[in-house]
Amino acid sequence: MANNAHHIHPLDPATAEEIQYATNLVKSAYNGIELHFKAAGLEEPPKAAMVHYLEAEHNNQPLPPIPRCIFLIWYIKRAPRLFEAIIDITNGAFVHHAELPRVFHGPVDRAEMNEAAQIVMADARVKEEIRRLKIDDTTVVLDPWDYGVDGNETQTRHTQVFMYMRNPKNNDPDSNHYCFPLDFMVIVDLCAMQVKRIIRLPLGSDQTATPVGSQVPHRRTDPIEPEYDHRLQKIPPRTTLKPYQVVQPEGASFTVTGHLIEWEKWRFRVGFNWREGLTLHDLSFDGRSAFYRLSLSEMFVPYGDPRNPIYRKGAFDLGNVGAGVTANNLQLGCDCLGTIKYFDGCVVSSDGSPAPRPNAICVHEVDNGIQWKHTNHRTGKATVVRKRQLVLQTIITVANYEYIFMWYFDQSGEITFETRATGILSTQPISKDAKVPWGTRVADGVMAPYHQHLFNVRIDPAVGGHANSFASTDSVPLDWDESLNPLGTGYVTQEKLLDRAGPVQDDVAKGRVFKILNENVQNPVSLTPIGYKLVPVRSQLLLAHPGSFHSRRSEFCESPIWVTKHKDRQLFPAGDYTNQSLGGTGIKSWLSEVPGKRDVVRNEDIVIWHTFGFTHNPRTEDFPIMPAEIAQVHLKPYNFALFNPTNDVPGSRQESNKSVMYEAPKEVVGECCKSHL
Amino acid sequence: MANNAHHIHPLDPATAEEIQYATNLVKSAYNGIELHFKAAGLEEPPKAAMVHYLEAEHNNQPLPPIPRCIFLIWYIKRAPRLFEAIIDITNGAFVHHAELPRVFHGPVDRAEMNEAAQIVMADARVKEEIRRLKIDDTTVVLDPWDYGVDGNETQTRHTQVFMYMRNPKNNDPDSNHYCFPLDFMVIVDLCAMQVKRIIRLPLGSDQTATPVGSQVPHRRTDPIEPEYDHRLQKIPPRTTLKPYQVVQPEGASFTVTGHLIEWEKWRFRVGFNWREGLTLHDLSFDGRSAFYRLSLSEMFVPYGDPRNPIYRKGAFDLGNVGAGVTANNLQLGCDCLGTIKYFDGCVVSSDGSPAPRPNAICVHEVDNGIQWKHTNHRTGKATVVRKRQLVLQTIITVANYEYIFMWYFDQSGEITFETRATGILSTQPISKDAKVPWGTRVADGVMAPYHQHLFNVRIDPAVGGHANSFASTDSVPLDWDESLNPLGTGYVTQEKLLDRAGPVQDDVAKGRVFKILNENVQNPVSLTPIGYKLVPVRSQLLLAHPGSFHSRRSEFCESPIWVTKHKDRQLFPAGDYTNQSLGGTGIKSWLSEVPGKRDVVRNEDIVIWHTFGFTHNPRTEDFPIMPAEIAQVHLKPYNFALFNPTNDVPGSRQESNKSVMYEAPKEVVGECCKSHL
Repeated sequence: MANNAHHIHPLDPATAEEIQYATNLVKSAYNGIELHFKAAGLEEPPKAAMVHYLEAEHNNQPLPPIPRCIFLIWYIKRAPRLFEAIIDITNGAFVHHAELPRVFHGPVDRAEMNEAAQIVMADARVKEEIRRLKIDDTTVVLDPWDYGVDGNETQTRHTQVFMYMRNPKNNDPDSNHYCFPLDFMVIVDLCAMQVKRIIRLPLGSDQTATPVGSQVPHRRTDPIEPEYDHRLQKIPPRTTLKPYQVVQPEGASFTVTGHLIEWEKWRFRVGFNWREGLTLHDLSFDGRSAFYRLSLSEMFVPYGDPRNPIYRKGAFDLGNVGAGVTANNLQLGCDCLGTIKYFDGCVVSSDGSPAPRPNAICVHEVDNGIQWKHTNHRTGKATVVRKRQLVLQTIITVANYEYIFMWYFDQSGEITFETRATGILSTQPISKDAKVPWGTRVADGVMAPYHQHLFNVRIDPAVGGHANSFASTDSVPLDWDESLNPLGTGYVTQEKLLDRAGPVQDDVAKGRVFKILNENVQNPVSLTPIGYKLVPVRSQLLLAHPGSFHSRRSEFCESPIWVTKHKDRQLFPAGDYTNQSLGGTGIKSWLSEVPGKRDVVRNEDIVIWHTFGFTHNPRTEDFPIMPAEIAQVHLKPYNFALFNPTNDVPGSRQESNKSVMYEAPKEVVGECCKSHL
Repeated sequence: MANNAHHIHPLDPATAEEIQYATNLVKSAYNGIELHFKAAGLEEPPKAAMVHYLEAEHNNQPLPPIPRCIFLIWYIKRAPRLFEAIIDITNGAFVHHAELPRVFHGPVDRAEMNEAAQIVMADARVKEEIRRLKIDDTTVVLDPWDYGVDGNETQTRHTQVFMYMRNPKNNDPDSNHYCFPLDFMVIVDLCAMQVKRIIRLPLGSDQTATPVGSQVPHRRTDPIEPEYDHRLQKIPPRTTLKPYQVVQPEGASFTVTGHLIEWEKWRFRVGFNWREGLTLHDLSFDGRSAFYRLSLSEMFVPYGDPRNPIYRKGAFDLGNVGAGVTANNLQLGCDCLGTIKYFDGCVVSSDGSPAPRPNAICVHEVDNGIQWKHTNHRTGKATVVRKRQLVLQTIITVANYEYIFMWYFDQSGEITFETRATGILSTQPISKDAKVPWGTRVADGVMAPYHQHLFNVRIDPAVGGHANSFASTDSVPLDWDESLNPLGTGYVTQEKLLDRAGPVQDDVAKGRVFKILNENVQNPVSLTPIGYKLVPVRSQLLLAHPGSFHSRRSEFCESPIWVTKHKDRQLFPAGDYTNQSLGGTGIKSWLSEVPGKRDVVRNEDIVIWHTFGFTHNPRTEDFPIMPAEIAQVHLKPYNFALFNPTNDVPGSRQESNKSVMYEAPKEVVGECCKSHL
């Protein structure tokens, strides 16, 4: 493959042609054995080579050759045999090719899930269950989930299929079936592609469930407003909301060249792959290196309902499914306002053909209020500068849920990673008047179990270079001392530099600040190392017991922050293969059990991993669709620049902003209340 | 005063006429004795009367008469005699009139500060200090501060004046003098109006300072970029930023009638007074009462430099100065974008005349990305609704610093209080190469001491009525049990209802959620009480030692949350008179020392007080002006509504949003890097 990709940068995502070329090469190696492709995407170059390349690029020197490589995962179709490979498509050769032990499972995919759904609906016992409920099987809707782990034995591949029906009042394909949960679910063996088990759900406040085969009638639920689709809602959309347009008469302030974005002192590259979706590379601010790579590395969604079969709900939405695979096709004027640039992605279909993900990422600017202001009271002169930000947004749909991931770049040198959890709650049926301590009744007969969303952001820093250190800085009172602190008001910072890889704890009471420092570069103004601070989301960590499968499988959820020494291909803190994983392959397992033997991380090429999330105990307000729950992680320059990087942002002026005064509508003629003066 | 205020609602702010009428009444009672007015504003009606009135108003019944009252504070000029009064201006009578004990002090004001500055500059010893520094006294700039407390004796009124000079390179009245701190400061007795003491500042890493009178020359500093005013900057403003306009072709979605705002299911009143600035009243969402009153109640800014004279820096910017007094005159197209409504305020001048605060509050809408989205993967149908918010913004300038306070109303029923800290760091001189553990060098010869900004938001709830309860709800693992929690994955919530008034602690590890509940109103969907949750800012509290004056004076800073039973006129959690206060009048002092004797707060008319803030250890990036540091407190409906209140917000559509595609500029012709395939 030599002549069809002229302007490809080594960090650019895999193209459709590259994926096709790689799957063809794999297929040809298997002599017609039918394969089921699970994943394909860019295998990023080893960091050493890439750093060498970027140095040359930044200095306008001749660029060293770097082969393009594609990483792939596939099964032999209908077999438990899982393979992975790295293919050098520049040279048409396998760099790595291995069959994986049976304990590992590839991610789920829509093709397999759809096949499983057909198997379920064709099953005689399932038909009998549907007949029992006296519903038409054309109104039944299936929600196949990745299968959580409930035992230690090496398992074949499964899916667990939760059962719903369409809204009987409209029987519309877009009705919100989560409002009409059925009282049974089905487990399918994906390898044998057959129904393995039917399970009745507990409907009351305890584990009790009726046995399959018993004649329990269907309880008709009557939700107040079951629909999120405006076309199907009882209440017509409100008419009070007036249009709001973002107009950029001179266009956007960013420029895009291939996958390179330049905006307001920022320069970085956009990447994309099947698993992490949007990734960011080679980020510099005002000409100085800041980060090598930023990404959402994993997320885990464990459920709190302790009962069978709900206790198997525990999804790794990146490792089990993929944020690139599930990336929405973003629409102009719907998912973002203003002047928009879209990036497309590409993943792989089960047959090995490229599966484009058009408009997977949108890029645009937002105005976020005021960046800084000062009024000199002596002269009355006010200077005000607005806070313009650049946003990269990607949205994923994982069955019922949606996640919106946004990276904000600020003129001040700050980067913010925002996640919004929205979409529809995964629901189950509940008896009239029953209450459970692990869930909320969100509609008549509908219970939404408590669950957590635990995210991990991987931060590969390059603050002024690749040798960085990690510090925890506390603000602590000075001892009350007649000579040094006579009024007892003084406080100082205590900075602790991390010597060895491992977890790092938070301490809100000490105002702990986490810093990535470059001890080799001193800021000549502050006389301290240049740095970036990580402002974490301070959140509850995993609630499942240590030793439970939820816990063993999600090692990153044990600590809010981890620091490791950089290693190539160490990207996923719950392990490379999370689907039905038994644990033991995540970030904790990478570390020596003896802290003193762990990697030295001071003044080294380090990676910081931040775990945060929501303990989501649903509210009625979260149904039938959920207003976004928002969390933001910030990376802020800390004595990185010599002075405020937004000092030269021009003042905010009406001449360009063109705001207008509110005028009261004519029909409003003053309040009816009388004066009593 | 009877005939000039026809449409005044009892919660509307005091008008200029009302203030003038009240000060005239006070003056006439003093028979020509010269008075120095410190504050004047609406004395809000007692809650019992107001609740009665609002019930009538909401039900379109005849409105009971409520007299308009004005609260005033004044001194007998140049005397330590402080008075307060409440004047019923409807009936022209004093309702309350008292001289306060000498331990209390009124707020500072610009007139008095300016007079003090003149006294300083006229003082022979000060002139001698300026001569020593070989600078022209016309270039000296004074920063008078409210005086912190350093001793227990009853004090007369003081100001502490920090000394700076204009940038010698431009000698401009708008130069950033905080970049050119002088090495001495002056304490002025405001009652005697004379210089009390001159103090040399410590310049090194310890307490050492040269004695006044000694001949220490001035060290010329040479900051890299001293100016925030674009006109004076070395680097011209960037030209990369393209205009960004918010266009609302059909106008705003809100309506304003007097001080009543209605927007997207929200209905509330805007208030304003000299001390709190913007206040919010009688807030209901979708026809149901939510809050009686919301306000920023106090803030404290203690400094961490333990040395004389810096240890006296500890400002209560509301109680000592006033967020209404210092409210900026907001400018169209500068401080906000889109279609803007402004509200004016009015405070009092020292001579008793009204002092208008035009455009003190702006109201406008913002688009905050996506509110909710779901794609049905079965049909490919995506439904997306954007998140429109209404913002009320006010900005205050307190000497060097600016605070931006914003109340966001969300279509989902959420209210967010946001504070942005910006403006200029209060600085002091530092020797070449000296370092201190309680401050950051932010420019050559300029040190910015560590400090904290501790805010308190007062939440007077009326969730479905005035009898409310306060709950702390933790998410905790279920015991790992073969029958009830066989996989060890279950978790439940434990809710603890607060019985008695007092402080409430946070616990991030338990995912603690704070709820305001109405136990008398059950949500028929969730079968639980309706409520609102408080999402606090999880922050470090006061660092000064318990027992220090900083601590004794700022009682609210001891706990992140306090709950009290509502009492009229209990509005300020550091006490009514914070200036030079000795403590003992704040929220802690309101509580019985015996917890069992405190007020019952379950199913009562309660008030919730949330303390949060920034431990601000400056960065070089915060100078010469500081990019806003942002914190947000949220109030979110929690089983308050029957279902998602934004369900009926129309879908986001390009037809009304009119976004446009990015087009690469013509001159960009692709990347220069070569392909290596």
